[in-house]
Amino acid sequence: MNFGIIVKVLGSLLIIEGICMVLPFAVSILYGEHDWLAFLICIVLNTVVGYLMYHFGNSSIWFKSRNTSNDNVKHYDDKNNKKSVIKIKDALAIVSFGWILVCLFGCLPFMISGSIPYFTDAFFEMVSGFTTTGATILNDLEVIPHGVLFWRSFSHWIGGMGILVFTVALLPALGVGSFQLYKAESPGPITEKLVPKIKDTVKVLYVTYIIMTVAEIILLIIGKMPLFDSVVHTFGTVGTGGLSIKNISIAAYNSTYINLVIAVFMLLASTNFSLYYALCKRRWKEVLKDQELRFHYGIILVSVILIALNINAKIFPNIWKSLEHAFFQVSSIISTTGYTSVDFDQWPTFSKLILFFLMFIGGCAGSTAGGMKAVRIVILAKLVNREIQKVIHPRAVMPVKLGDRALSTDTLLSISSFVFLYILTFILGTLVLALEDISFPSAASASIAMLSNVGPGFEFVGPMRNYSEFSAFSKWIMSLLMLLGRLELFTIIALLNQKLWKDEM
Amino acid sequence: MNFGIIVKVLGSLLIIEGICMVLPFAVSILYGEHDWLAFLICIVLNTVVGYLMYHFGNSSIWFKSRNTSNDNVKHYDDKNNKKSVIKIKDALAIVSFGWILVCLFGCLPFMISGSIPYFTDAFFEMVSGFTTTGATILNDLEVIPHGVLFWRSFSHWIGGMGILVFTVALLPALGVGSFQLYKAESPGPITEKLVPKIKDTVKVLYVTYIIMTVAEIILLIIGKMPLFDSVVHTFGTVGTGGLSIKNISIAAYNSTYINLVIAVFMLLASTNFSLYYALCKRRWKEVLKDQELRFHYGIILVSVILIALNINAKIFPNIWKSLEHAFFQVSSIISTTGYTSVDFDQWPTFSKLILFFLMFIGGCAGSTAGGMKAVRIVILAKLVNREIQKVIHPRAVMPVKLGDRALSTDTLLSISSFVFLYILTFILGTLVLALEDISFPSAASASIAMLSNVGPGFEFVGPMRNYSEFSAFSKWIMSLLMLLGRLELFTIIALLNQKLWKDEM
Repeated sequence: MNFGIIVKVLGSLLIIEGICMVLPFAVSILYGEHDWLAFLICIVLNTVVGYLMYHFGNSSIWFKSRNTSNDNVKHYDDKNNKKSVIKIKDALAIVSFGWILVCLFGCLPFMISGSIPYFTDAFFEMVSGFTTTGATILNDLEVIPHGVLFWRSFSHWIGGMGILVFTVALLPALGVGSFQLYKAESPGPITEKLVPKIKDTVKVLYVTYIIMTVAEIILLIIGKMPLFDSVVHTFGTVGTGGLSIKNISIAAYNSTYINLVIAVFMLLASTNFSLYYALCKRRWKEVLKDQELRFHYGIILVSVILIALNINAKIFPNIWKSLEHAFFQVSSIISTTGYTSVDFDQWPTFSKLILFFLMFIGGCAGSTAGGMKAVRIVILAKLVNREIQKVIHPRAVMPVKLGDRALSTDTLLSISSFVFLYILTFILGTLVLALEDISFPSAASASIAMLSNVGPGFEFVGPMRNYSEFSAFSKWIMSLLMLLGRLELFTIIALLNQKLWKDEM
Repeated sequence: MNFGIIVKVLGSLLIIEGICMVLPFAVSILYGEHDWLAFLICIVLNTVVGYLMYHFGNSSIWFKSRNTSNDNVKHYDDKNNKKSVIKIKDALAIVSFGWILVCLFGCLPFMISGSIPYFTDAFFEMVSGFTTTGATILNDLEVIPHGVLFWRSFSHWIGGMGILVFTVALLPALGVGSFQLYKAESPGPITEKLVPKIKDTVKVLYVTYIIMTVAEIILLIIGKMPLFDSVVHTFGTVGTGGLSIKNISIAAYNSTYINLVIAVFMLLASTNFSLYYALCKRRWKEVLKDQELRFHYGIILVSVILIALNINAKIFPNIWKSLEHAFFQVSSIISTTGYTSVDFDQWPTFSKLILFFLMFIGGCAGSTAGGMKAVRIVILAKLVNREIQKVIHPRAVMPVKLGDRALSTDTLLSISSFVFLYILTFILGTLVLALEDISFPSAASASIAMLSNVGPGFEFVGPMRNYSEFSAFSKWIMSLLMLLGRLELFTIIALLNQKLWKDEM
């Protein structure tokens, strides 16, 4: 571990967070509400702590003194020339601790302003914000000051951006986990190419993300949603977060136009952002042939039709209303946003189960969406299909292909493991939450809604309810699930490996 | 496809089934009940049809005439010397069609005797019997004649034997699917070694199975269970079936001794039978070191303790009663038997969820139990663990080992695919059953209870209820799920492959 560089980067993250807090501070000043002081305190705190970490981090005096006391000294010095580059495990530590640290400092305004007095609740709410989950412990949103509401939603936007950088730029460059998929595109020794590659990719992501944000705000304002509401709901949409400022979410506006705008933007945000880059370069064919994209929209189409048929007549008077709400909810769940246009917990079991299983799938890789990601499901489906063929032709060699590229067995095993670990985490989460003695669907849907960063589930955690009634223990477990899901499991779990902290790879 | 040999083997299966029906026929004569005629008719029918198929099958006159009409003739004749051996696809067809045919003929006594008048119900009941599922559509068991009751339970015993032969002897000899695990032990060209290998293994299985059966019958009689009840419940136990002759299953006897005897034998039946062979040969170390066995009993121990703590005080007055019923239900569910000592649907969600997830795991490979099998879970856990290590050491070579043997990537991918296909089948089953508008836990537990051949689930299909209220469509779907689960998915699904029917491999 190169603690020096880790502390330095974490420090700069805190400074950036402090700068971000200027916006909610401005909002609270604008509305003349009392929460401006909370934000001012936190801006100062973040900047000071961040600066100290940044300054003393890289000098790493205390680390060197620690290192001289053990046998690794020589080994350490031998590698001195490599010390300035970020290694895989350092990157893992930066991402994991970075996310936690930003949530810890980010939840302070909630507590200082008195909006969320308890630390557990404030931390849960902030994790829910930054991981773009969108689950809330607030019972009545409509009494919360605007600055705090803005900060919750803005954290979706920042978190969405963060996750794009993390999955599209950082992970593939490191060649970590299942993102070996993209490895072919970043050949050569990993460390040298890391920085320039990230910078390029990130620029494209920023621009796409900002254009999407501005476009949705304008379209919502045209639909007569107030400016403030438009901005925060856009943050929730493009970040696929789902925190609202209304107790009954988007249903409060009761507008087909607004439902459709948000539904479409949820889907846009859950699509692989590198496809937008390809679109800009007019590489139409590449986009249309993209198998993940086809699967993603294929499953949406099928789900919407099945649910619309299932709820038609039972819940809504006509097929158009059924289609509208089926489309909104499918879009909201598969993009792992979690906005609600209607209380879908009242829908028949069949429709609810479709939504439940969509929570596992989630959006495309390289989007702001959570879940297992469509591309993994596509690859696993191909793998299963090959094994069926193999029963009859045991000696035939049949590569599993994504597009034109044959996937290595390493990649296939890596993706399989990811999915198993995902399911295992879901099962453990469900069991722990079931200790609250809530119903079977409540525990299961809460677990996957956290892990896939969706937000609402069914029954006890239904769309018209919130997470306030859980015990503090459960809230910590759920915070952990949100972080695990957001950071693609392996990032955090690999950090728990003792060896990581001992040997210098 | 070598239709000649397929028809011949299917014919002999029907004759064996006819011979098996002599036992329930004798029972009905003994009890002087009206169902003797139904069995007599079916014995004659099975024997005649079976004999005709056996006789005309191998001569395959009509197949030859069909073959002369297409281009494959020469190819077919070239391989004439190989015609007498069973190829993989022929074996798949024999197993799949064999199971279905035996169920079709086996359900006739139910209909003819009038005990189960409708074909759908009778077929469901028979599939539930032969697949050792143990789900019933009978509302009142205590008015059904003894011959019919005996036949239902006896089908568990026959089915259990059949599945042992299928998974321990046939599949490994063929090297099919995930049973490549055992491939190393059956080297050389597959077809030559098939027959002698099967005969050897089957003999050991028979002896173990029969000793187990006799032992349990004696122990149950000692526990003052009537002879008839002891016999049928033993069939249900050693076959891990679960059909009872009491409406409230084993709870009817209200005896701790009987609960413990049955619980222990359910576990014995869900243990890999090849370990008993190793025990006879005094290879103690091999048995104690068996990782599947350790996992199987480890997970049972943990589940029993967690459930006992969860239900203690809430459901039962003292820890011993809690432990007894926790042990019985865990044993019943993980062995995929499905007997009930108490209405576990009344237990808290936490306990129910543990039972629910155990349904997926099931027993050991090479036992009469259903489910995904412990060995696959063990291997997947090792795979996941390796991938976690790999995040930090991407270039390290770390083989996944079972015991001393390193598993090939082919085996790992094959097992992964099996589990994904299993989960996919569960999801599709759940969605289709949810169309009945039953609750979420009802649909999910019914789907996995069928696929893993467990029997009871929760709520609508809880242990004190039955499957009679489902629509005919759902009953057919559930029959399919039982067969798919019992035949390890790939066997049947590979048969759906068009190519199988066309080319001569």
